[in-house]
Amino acid sequence: MKIGLIAGGGQFPLLFAKKAAQKGISVVAAGFASETDPGLAKEVSVFQWLYLGQISRLVKYFKRQGVHEAVMLGTIEKTSIFKDIRPDFKALTFILKTGGSHDDAILTRFADLMKTQGIEIRPSTFLLPELLSPAGCWTQRPLDSAEQQDAYQGWKLAKAVGKLDIGQCIVISNGTVLAVEAIDGTDATIRRGGDLSRGNGCVVIKLSKPQQDLRFDLPATGCETIRTMAASGATALVLETGKSLSFDREKMVALADEYHIAITALTEQDIP
Amino acid sequence: MKIGLIAGGGQFPLLFAKKAAQKGISVVAAGFASETDPGLAKEVSVFQWLYLGQISRLVKYFKRQGVHEAVMLGTIEKTSIFKDIRPDFKALTFILKTGGSHDDAILTRFADLMKTQGIEIRPSTFLLPELLSPAGCWTQRPLDSAEQQDAYQGWKLAKAVGKLDIGQCIVISNGTVLAVEAIDGTDATIRRGGDLSRGNGCVVIKLSKPQQDLRFDLPATGCETIRTMAASGATALVLETGKSLSFDREKMVALADEYHIAITALTEQDIP
Repeated sequence: MKIGLIAGGGQFPLLFAKKAAQKGISVVAAGFASETDPGLAKEVSVFQWLYLGQISRLVKYFKRQGVHEAVMLGTIEKTSIFKDIRPDFKALTFILKTGGSHDDAILTRFADLMKTQGIEIRPSTFLLPELLSPAGCWTQRPLDSAEQQDAYQGWKLAKAVGKLDIGQCIVISNGTVLAVEAIDGTDATIRRGGDLSRGNGCVVIKLSKPQQDLRFDLPATGCETIRTMAASGATALVLETGKSLSFDREKMVALADEYHIAITALTEQDIP
Repeated sequence: MKIGLIAGGGQFPLLFAKKAAQKGISVVAAGFASETDPGLAKEVSVFQWLYLGQISRLVKYFKRQGVHEAVMLGTIEKTSIFKDIRPDFKALTFILKTGGSHDDAILTRFADLMKTQGIEIRPSTFLLPELLSPAGCWTQRPLDSAEQQDAYQGWKLAKAVGKLDIGQCIVISNGTVLAVEAIDGTDATIRRGGDLSRGNGCVVIKLSKPQQDLRFDLPATGCETIRTMAASGATALVLETGKSLSFDREKMVALADEYHIAITALTEQDIP
């Protein structure tokens, strides 16, 4: 078996490549300068650097290598769309067709486009279902009652903001929204919200968008999230069961326990 | 005639006091340390410093001075609610009753509470209707077609975010939301969005919330808004006709023209 890997940044592409190797699956990877870890090249069968926007080159590369299914995973800095993008003709046609605006719609349409080229985009977690967040409280300390209230209210707000396709994360404290993620990313949002809470603590809520195609761009957290929270005074993290990724979960929970941070994963049904 | 003035920061309380004096209205003012301009004391008949949260003291002060109607205007840093607030017994009861959370609901309920004490809260603009933003394009340069598209899309997003009671301002560029105001305030949001646009320009949209009580806390802009926009690379400002305040409008427009920034005021009916 052979699979294409359209690889963004972070450890997810490496984890995927290693798991695929374990299972005897051959990985044909495409990476992007200033996004993808160069170390990925050593973990895959074939590796090719591309620029963001080179859809034709990507399709030709996969076809040449006999790839019929692929995953798209890892982070792409959203602000990258303002700098190092080099759309080729296929990409330009694609951008014109989609209007070039909405985040999630674009990924889904990109997957549709790939399918017309004979390449099926599979869910990013199909080899690593263990990365999906399990239900319930993960830490020694559960959310206290004020944090629980913020979790419920913040869940609704984060889903509503996600529905507007603005971002996946909000920071809330005692019913007041301190920060909303837009293009700046989760860590910047946590830092901003934490600073604005002025030592009163706050709850970080990071959820999938209601209209999100669960094949790609699931909300992800890990040790770095906990370190950022600790440094900025955030006290609790709320994730979505089965619809978010958590990396290095054991280390992440140990770190959270050390900082007395509570982590819980909820589902829509938990929200009163 | 005599009117109470619950005065936040900025120039609005001073403008109000001067206009009242011109009309022979006697002003009984309450100011808050670290918010209100101390110069206000000289412009009013009676002045008293209070701490945020001293509702009983405020009511007693107004009653003693024979005040039966009042306005509430000027800025209160939202982050102040995390620091220098000294709620008295009436305020605590009030906070418990309102659940202490929602911004706009709280102001309306505060006005209701004042009414039960015999003090009617009037719209902040009743002496200064000229501060309300007039319809149309104010600057030499109108919005270009990309900015116009962002204005329309951003209007809907800003109204939706406002409906969630999160904030009044968003920054958008080519259909992508760069920044959403939460508790951090408009200038910080403009700076963040402008920086994230990386020199590609962006549109700042600042609107009233749909459920907003128009008696207080209308979205306000002025010369400082334009300076912040210029410094961070924002190219156009969209306001709401009749439901937003603009201070020093002549200077503000001259400054915008200097920086080649476009300003326009729209209404719900303008949005396709």
